[in-house]
Amino acid sequence: MAVPAPNALKADPEYRAAVIDLLGVLAYGELTAFERIAADGAMSPTIDDKIALAALASGKYAHFTRLGDRLREMGVRVEDAMEPFKRPLDEFHAYTAPSDWLEGMVKAYVGDGIGADFYLEVSNYVDTQTQAIVQAVCGDASASAFIVDRVRGAIQDDPRCAGRLALWGRRLVGEALSQAQRVAADRDALSTLLVGGVDRPGADLAEIGRMLARMTENHTRRMSSLGLAA
Amino acid sequence: MAVPAPNALKADPEYRAAVIDLLGVLAYGELTAFERIAADGAMSPTIDDKIALAALASGKYAHFTRLGDRLREMGVRVEDAMEPFKRPLDEFHAYTAPSDWLEGMVKAYVGDGIGADFYLEVSNYVDTQTQAIVQAVCGDASASAFIVDRVRGAIQDDPRCAGRLALWGRRLVGEALSQAQRVAADRDALSTLLVGGVDRPGADLAEIGRMLARMTENHTRRMSSLGLAA
Repeated sequence: MAVPAPNALKADPEYRAAVIDLLGVLAYGELTAFERIAADGAMSPTIDDKIALAALASGKYAHFTRLGDRLREMGVRVEDAMEPFKRPLDEFHAYTAPSDWLEGMVKAYVGDGIGADFYLEVSNYVDTQTQAIVQAVCGDASASAFIVDRVRGAIQDDPRCAGRLALWGRRLVGEALSQAQRVAADRDALSTLLVGGVDRPGADLAEIGRMLARMTENHTRRMSSLGLAA
Repeated sequence: MAVPAPNALKADPEYRAAVIDLLGVLAYGELTAFERIAADGAMSPTIDDKIALAALASGKYAHFTRLGDRLREMGVRVEDAMEPFKRPLDEFHAYTAPSDWLEGMVKAYVGDGIGADFYLEVSNYVDTQTQAIVQAVCGDASASAFIVDRVRGAIQDDPRCAGRLALWGRRLVGEALSQAQRVAADRDALSTLLVGGVDRPGADLAEIGRMLARMTENHTRRMSSLGLAA
């Protein structure tokens, strides 16, 4: 595994551009997760759920401001860093608009979980400073227990909804992959974080294969913790 | 103007119940304002607007946690204190669901403004500790400049929308008054904060008249700062 030299952010403009992309896509992801989870709160059946989701959304906003602060330190406006990712992420959310509260919960856990896994994998290939912030943002699993509890409870009350939610989980993965491919094709610098650049060796095909295997396992584990087939 | 004795929270159970009601209705108002403004963010035309609204929503969440902390100090669960106000506030929001982003902005400024004015008036009749928290929550005008700027800009771009938004402002006031009357009728303790209780003189009719006049003036001033007729 190839880790960039500590001075790579200064010495390697392509690497710096890639890190700005990484922080930008994460920032837009957290900002829209904030909006989405707060809206799920408004659909919540109970006041307790509203409070739990507001706390969760507020954590996403804290991630967003942290990413924005780091970009500002690097001399970049967060608005500018996010701009290239607005369209693919908006499209992902438009194609995967939950039709009810439960679908929103599965999306917040399973959809955001795949994204977080991916960026945690990428964080193995970046400088330690960037790594720390990516791991803090993507390693925050504070949502999990609450959502697992609510989705399992709903399936217990009405076992028929398990089939619909399992299909929904598969659709989330499919849409996420198709938008990720588009981003990878559009943003060369970002892709080179994983596969390497001119002076920077990255993951080889075998490593990428293992990474996809790990992501698939984690996804299956998340679905099954909800009581759903992956 | 009659201010309760510093020990009223301990000595007067009716007064204590009224303060719990006051903090509960404010907490539910801030929690739903949080959800609403975050959802407005998702409808925002630009990334800059999204960021501004996320910051605003996040401030509402901070108010909510502050009110919840104070209720906990008083030995009350915020969930329980909010419960009586869920239905009237949910109905208010259902009857005044904005049909677009601009209506959402006017609601966040004009609708929340009337509510804040009312609670600031009530805060003249409570103990200093309760007063401090009500004034911190309701005196926060951080939203104003951003919203005024955006709504004025929209009217400049398309003057025809001024008529529709002026009507919308009037509807917000009408619905707010009709829900407020219901709350006043259902929650005796809360009403006595203003009009007084057995051992606690409150506002007389002349004072209430002046209060309504001040609220009307503030509302008119807010509408006109948006470029709208009240």
